[in-house]
Amino acid sequence: MPVITLLTDFGTSDEYIGVMKGVILSINPAVTIVDITHRIDPQDLVQAAYTINACYRYFPPGTIHVSVIDPGVGTGREIIALKMAGFCFLAPDNGILSLLLNNISVDEAISVNNPDYFLNSISRTFHGRDIFAPVAGHLSRDVMLNQLGSPIDINTVKRLDLPRIKRLSDNVISGTIISVDHFGNLITNIDADTIYSICSGKPEKIPVVEIAGIDIEGLSDNYTTVPVQQPLMIIGSRNLLEISVNRGNAGRLFGKQKGDTIRMNVKEQKI
Amino acid sequence: MPVITLLTDFGTSDEYIGVMKGVILSINPAVTIVDITHRIDPQDLVQAAYTINACYRYFPPGTIHVSVIDPGVGTGREIIALKMAGFCFLAPDNGILSLLLNNISVDEAISVNNPDYFLNSISRTFHGRDIFAPVAGHLSRDVMLNQLGSPIDINTVKRLDLPRIKRLSDNVISGTIISVDHFGNLITNIDADTIYSICSGKPEKIPVVEIAGIDIEGLSDNYTTVPVQQPLMIIGSRNLLEISVNRGNAGRLFGKQKGDTIRMNVKEQKI
Amino acid sequence: MPVITLLTDFGTSDEYIGVMKGVILSINPAVTIVDITHRIDPQDLVQAAYTINACYRYFPPGTIHVSVIDPGVGTGREIIALKMAGFCFLAPDNGILSLLLNNISVDEAISVNNPDYFLNSISRTFHGRDIFAPVAGHLSRDVMLNQLGSPIDINTVKRLDLPRIKRLSDNVISGTIISVDHFGNLITNIDADTIYSICSGKPEKIPVVEIAGIDIEGLSDNYTTVPVQQPLMIIGSRNLLEISVNRGNAGRLFGKQKGDTIRMNVKEQKI
Repeated sequence: MPVITLLTDFGTSDEYIGVMKGVILSINPAVTIVDITHRIDPQDLVQAAYTINACYRYFPPGTIHVSVIDPGVGTGREIIALKMAGFCFLAPDNGILSLLLNNISVDEAISVNNPDYFLNSISRTFHGRDIFAPVAGHLSRDVMLNQLGSPIDINTVKRLDLPRIKRLSDNVISGTIISVDHFGNLITNIDADTIYSICSGKPEKIPVVEIAGIDIEGLSDNYTTVPVQQPLMIIGSRNLLEISVNRGNAGRLFGKQKGDTIRMNVKEQKI
Repeated sequence: MPVITLLTDFGTSDEYIGVMKGVILSINPAVTIVDITHRIDPQDLVQAAYTINACYRYFPPGTIHVSVIDPGVGTGREIIALKMAGFCFLAPDNGILSLLLNNISVDEAISVNNPDYFLNSISRTFHGRDIFAPVAGHLSRDVMLNQLGSPIDINTVKRLDLPRIKRLSDNVISGTIISVDHFGNLITNIDADTIYSICSGKPEKIPVVEIAGIDIEGLSDNYTTVPVQQPLMIIGSRNLLEISVNRGNAGRLFGKQKGDTIRMNVKEQKI
Repeated sequence: MPVITLLTDFGTSDEYIGVMKGVILSINPAVTIVDITHRIDPQDLVQAAYTINACYRYFPPGTIHVSVIDPGVGTGREIIALKMAGFCFLAPDNGILSLLLNNISVDEAISVNNPDYFLNSISRTFHGRDIFAPVAGHLSRDVMLNQLGSPIDINTVKRLDLPRIKRLSDNVISGTIISVDHFGNLITNIDADTIYSICSGKPEKIPVVEIAGIDIEGLSDNYTTVPVQQPLMIIGSRNLLEISVNRGNAGRLFGKQKGDTIRMNVKEQKI
């Protein structure tokens, strides 16, 4: 019962995702296909990089993760297949897998160029259907990674310049909003360890974020620690700092969006 | 071939639903997962209550229905598992299952608190992934309901204060728009039996709704009984009164939304 | 491992699609169900006709393609089941299958009227649940097409008046935007063969489209042949002419929408 996941910026209003599934099922009718999301903002490789990093590990070992955010479709850009942490990742060589490459080691890396596993006719605009889907279908059966093409040096794989946390002083940092989720939660790139570190692990030191003129102090354990429509900070499901509003929408309330900067400092309180 | 359904307010623009499916498939690769919808309005328990009530019975016996609209995630709110009508329902104890509890009897009720069936690490914000998904996965295999936790008294389960039909006089009632669907149909809480009753079951008595200054008279058998862009009343697929516009969008045409009141009276016509 | 596909205008914010899947799985738990899209514009039969034509062939032989865009639900309109090209198509008799009927031959045509394969109770508004889903479920098991109802003459099947390419002069044509996709690509009804023909197959003759005061000259091989935010023409995945913007949204940039006319002429260039 192999699993193939699909992560794209194709949306769900056209036939594109359905067609990819048809191609996969034509090759392997026994596969289970799971949509991660198809609403990555068009061509947003950074958002895709964070999303695949947040989800891959929750799938069964051997799952084939297919990520198609592909503004260079039809150009000479390569398609890569990487074996990492017991999973297989298939993506254009444009940096989508950067965050994974920072975090986990690569067991095998292949440039996918063997047309035996492509559809017979390759369109200019839809390699998701013509290359990614059939290759994933074959991989989920009995085709080995090294049959898909030639080995590559992992150091040649393209990396994105991902937003980093900046240390502005001993206990002031700035981070970036990497995503505004469906609820309007502002997901930042500031991880729990960094917050622990700037607070020196001392409970009397609490992190403070100023946003739109309001100070949010300390980390909440759940959304109801503040009154309805009031903001809070919480370590979210990606183990990253999120700014939320209890039963509200932080993105709309604060007019913040993806890419905006968040500044955090530390306040000492009496306990 | 067990079936698990998912009903949430998580949207489909993030990795949340994909991750839940990954967790389920890691535990039971043979399960079929069906999305009811993930676009319940954020935190709208009433809308969720009507939706699960409208769909549960159409699934195979034994289906596990998982509803995660969970503003109290991370608080002390309990998670309940109920066996009703041959199905299993898994939800936060916040009232989502109220309408079911009014309509069908409970065969078994459990407070889900056995961490053996949770993921090892529980986040503050995403029990859908960390508790609901793995519990559903185990239930779909060989785990029995009573292994998930301790039995509870069904009378202690939280109920919502759902909108009720009000009888204003002998043949005047007011109801509530409980949902505006994708087509703009205004779905009310007025059921077919109530309409039959206020019309005394007599064909010369016909129900009339006044909406935005327009009288809609009588129930239509289909959308084409009125000219294009004209309004009509029809008993919809939930067996509830809906106000629709032939090839149009009643929500937009009338500026009506969820929660608005609908007043119905009865008119006698010559036949 | 039979496959059923669903193409509708039902959206994904209500329980409608989930319920259809529940009905299908109740009849055949072993089927794989694939969503083509549920975001056909409400009641848009032409858009549906192009979409089913663009996707059907990518599925395994024997796939049952169910298309429910059904403004006449509950009227006397028939439901048809056609066997074509090794697939089975189930749809209201309202023209959705017109483009298929132009392109491929029909091996069997049935008017679906045998209530043995319907749900017991038929609602006024949701034959997707009450008729299409159970019929598809039975078809995916052991029910033959001719058990569903009575044979019909294919010439009586309703056809849509689909937009056609108009030849305005020897090398000037006009076409129609049939869809604006998720990326804002303007998909026209002008096919690659027609462009080859008006250019007489000569490389020095290149097609030119004037759109919103800008001339786009020649066909691009991929999106990056023009600078970012600049427009281009390309033969897309449906083998039709698309007008796109490199890393941009042509629909928004040009204010164009479905149904708008596109005029193409031919320019001779020195080579």
